[in-house]
Amino acid sequence: MLRLGPLAAAAGRLLPAGLRLGSTRPARGWVSHSRAWPPGPVGDRGLLSRQVRAVTGSAHGGGRGPVLKTPKGTRDHPPAQAALRDRLLAAVVACFKRHGAAAIDTPVLELRETLTGKYGEEAKLIYELQDQGGELLALRYDLTVPFARYLAMNKITNMKRYHVAKVYRRDNPATTRGRYREFYQCDFDIAGQFDPMIPDAECLKIVHEILSDLQLGDFLIKVNDRRILNGVFAVCGIPESKFITTCSTVDKLDKIPWQDVKNEMVGEKGLSPEAADRIGEYVQLHGGLDLIERLLQDPKLSQNKLAKEGLGDMKLLFEYLALFGITGKISFDLSLARGLDYYTGVIFEAVLLQQENDHVEEPVSVGSVAGGGRYDGLVGMFDPKGRKVPCVGVSIGIERIFSILEQRAKASGEKVRATETEVLVATPQKQLLAARLKLISELWDAGIKAEMFYKKDPKLLKQLQYCEDTGIPLAAIVGEQELTDGVVKLRDVATREEVDIPREKLVDEIRRRLEP
Amino acid sequence: MLRLGPLAAAAGRLLPAGLRLGSTRPARGWVSHSRAWPPGPVGDRGLLSRQVRAVTGSAHGGGRGPVLKTPKGTRDHPPAQAALRDRLLAAVVACFKRHGAAAIDTPVLELRETLTGKYGEEAKLIYELQDQGGELLALRYDLTVPFARYLAMNKITNMKRYHVAKVYRRDNPATTRGRYREFYQCDFDIAGQFDPMIPDAECLKIVHEILSDLQLGDFLIKVNDRRILNGVFAVCGIPESKFITTCSTVDKLDKIPWQDVKNEMVGEKGLSPEAADRIGEYVQLHGGLDLIERLLQDPKLSQNKLAKEGLGDMKLLFEYLALFGITGKISFDLSLARGLDYYTGVIFEAVLLQQENDHVEEPVSVGSVAGGGRYDGLVGMFDPKGRKVPCVGVSIGIERIFSILEQRAKASGEKVRATETEVLVATPQKQLLAARLKLISELWDAGIKAEMFYKKDPKLLKQLQYCEDTGIPLAAIVGEQELTDGVVKLRDVATREEVDIPREKLVDEIRRRLEP
Repeated sequence: MLRLGPLAAAAGRLLPAGLRLGSTRPARGWVSHSRAWPPGPVGDRGLLSRQVRAVTGSAHGGGRGPVLKTPKGTRDHPPAQAALRDRLLAAVVACFKRHGAAAIDTPVLELRETLTGKYGEEAKLIYELQDQGGELLALRYDLTVPFARYLAMNKITNMKRYHVAKVYRRDNPATTRGRYREFYQCDFDIAGQFDPMIPDAECLKIVHEILSDLQLGDFLIKVNDRRILNGVFAVCGIPESKFITTCSTVDKLDKIPWQDVKNEMVGEKGLSPEAADRIGEYVQLHGGLDLIERLLQDPKLSQNKLAKEGLGDMKLLFEYLALFGITGKISFDLSLARGLDYYTGVIFEAVLLQQENDHVEEPVSVGSVAGGGRYDGLVGMFDPKGRKVPCVGVSIGIERIFSILEQRAKASGEKVRATETEVLVATPQKQLLAARLKLISELWDAGIKAEMFYKKDPKLLKQLQYCEDTGIPLAAIVGEQELTDGVVKLRDVATREEVDIPREKLVDEIRRRLEP
Repeated sequence: MLRLGPLAAAAGRLLPAGLRLGSTRPARGWVSHSRAWPPGPVGDRGLLSRQVRAVTGSAHGGGRGPVLKTPKGTRDHPPAQAALRDRLLAAVVACFKRHGAAAIDTPVLELRETLTGKYGEEAKLIYELQDQGGELLALRYDLTVPFARYLAMNKITNMKRYHVAKVYRRDNPATTRGRYREFYQCDFDIAGQFDPMIPDAECLKIVHEILSDLQLGDFLIKVNDRRILNGVFAVCGIPESKFITTCSTVDKLDKIPWQDVKNEMVGEKGLSPEAADRIGEYVQLHGGLDLIERLLQDPKLSQNKLAKEGLGDMKLLFEYLALFGITGKISFDLSLARGLDYYTGVIFEAVLLQQENDHVEEPVSVGSVAGGGRYDGLVGMFDPKGRKVPCVGVSIGIERIFSILEQRAKASGEKVRATETEVLVATPQKQLLAARLKLISELWDAGIKAEMFYKKDPKLLKQLQYCEDTGIPLAAIVGEQELTDGVVKLRDVATREEVDIPREKLVDEIRRRLEP
């Protein structure tokens, strides 16, 4: 199993030599912008501040040049960040594959009508394109609706798939919290008619595995069920037409105190104070199997069909989670409501718990790092005959996790690399470009990751310095003497030891040295 | 080095068991759409025909339902295709990393003005978004202009980067030739001021490595230089204002005969027949070092400064390519012109040569599978002070290569997989769901890729059949007896051999069996 190391270390390890994200001074070897070589993400600090300006819309490239920025709420990923992100995504995908999911890919563009009516109030955040000769298009808002469209379009009634891709929301960017207008989603979904709660339990197991693998610190997975919430609203005397809007108010209980939530219910949503108080008695509850049992005995709730179904399934879910050995991090929490309209059953959300970490300079507010739930009606919205395909899925909040890693990386001094180069092919005298080209070609053809300077006559010292700066472990040096002797001088960059290796044995020797 | 196997075999190997792309009948195990399990890309044949309809704009989901299609010129990738594509992209990225490149990522969205004036006539194919509160945005058209914008914005003067991502062109889709409106580009670029032709030679080496690795059959890399072309035009008496338009006519020589090219030059572009004939004498030439030498002696061309520079560099390039041992597949071809405006020096394009292949049912016309060149002026267009950063790069035409693989896969009967599941956890009697959940959880936690049926009491035969259908190599079976004995029955799906393994040794035994 691919496990990232302890967080701070992992983040550090993924950074290129000498580059600390957001550090206040560029580290050794990356200072000058005008060095002919090495290339690299120089000026990263400048980049970060420029991105902040870009986000607030004030960046430009000077008085007379073109405007130099990325669109509001978007950003470039220089090599260090791209490498960190690739590593994170690989860990998530490894977990999805471990659970037997297949990848699918869908277009970034969807017909507008595919997205219409799926997201409730959030639909206003959808990016729309100009009319393309009669086709009205939009950028996808999530990966769930395209998945449902895909299932309906291809009449697929069961499938376990993952999808890692960018989605687009014209939200107010909060970039320090990892909230962008273009961001990755990592989704795993199980579609099909199965026995209750088995796929649902697997989704929670996946969240548990990924958050454990990434060693993000302590976390809690809150679980609830839309049917239980609706049952609570019903027995508290709320009309069905107000269920969804009441849901969205309840969902704020993790951010604001009950009194404020109650005020919103009464003042804005028009509930009676008595009904609000009755709701309050329920939605402030959280616990485990004991709470489920208690609510199953609740005189009012046990009379409500939906609530009873939901509670029965919740009990089953906890049984399965106990078999997975993960109930310690699961909380049945009646205040969890989730924003999206399409959920119909189990819903869940994972949050990181406040933790001690000396390395973190400023605390990062990250919100939830994973969420999901059951949406049994969405595929039916696309089917001409309304045929339903029950689905449950989970989305990993990779951008927020990435933000945490980025912030922690600030504090980590460990130097790491953005490239994987294993050998620098170097020459100690002039007029040896041909020798370098011939040797590096042999190494590439043998599958060895190799670089050389793009100069005819580079200085040996600069070549060796480049190895040290960028973490290349080996230098293969061919000088006049080596050419005469039919050998290559292989230098261990860390120890500075040099050994002459017969040319025909060089590839094997390099491979041997690179073995872990 | 990651090498894909022989093409037909490789394509076959990447397909899931029982699923042959575009085969005329669904294979065993994937027939029924209503089976509760296994999930999978059932109805793939339906998908393909529906995609064709979607592309022609005639697909919809029936009389009263919503329109069910992807936007014109785009497509979904079901698991078999997604797996094949992932494998292809991985091979390309492996080569880029072998050459020491770092990844960067840029947004899919760019400011419209970033793209304006970079693509010549092709600019009309850019997708534009609706006004986003004052920001005028477009979807990126390639990865080169965003790279140049990135370099200028961050004042980076040297960098070796790769970028694999989707780009968008409102072209007329030709989907059978692998031409879509949303497609992947795989770009490798070297930015910086270096000694001539060293990075350029590396780009050609990369094309050679990738096309060899993928075993696509015989190929040819055509090379030319914009300076040589401009020199030819100049000595033939063409005014400089007509260089670019003459270029685009010359570029058609690989598709239409010289007489038609000449007619276009005279009739549409307004050249004199004599000038056209003079051009014709040059642009029909192709060869190697000998041709370069001959042109260097050409009485007219050797007087032209640009042409002389270009020919001198071409000679140097061939020297370096000889050291790489790849001149056998390189042709100096004066008809190669390349469409984009921004090239300033070396240009190149790789084409597959017609080949014998019994497996191919219908010949696939694929055009070029890689291309690139030197663009020394593009970054300067973004810099407020016009500071130039010389660049050379290559783009691998992954969609066309993917089309070839897809077509060849038609003919390959070999069954392969869309998932990587190693073990199915199965039970032979009823009432054993808890035992399965407990065991599969142990396997997941040990990093083993495992699946189970989401049914309480599945039939053993169906579980074993699923392993055979989907290529899962092992089944871990827990029945009442096994639970009593503290063992798990491990079944080799291929040989059907079963052995009882003590529970505590199961993970090690599975790992041992999965070793290559």
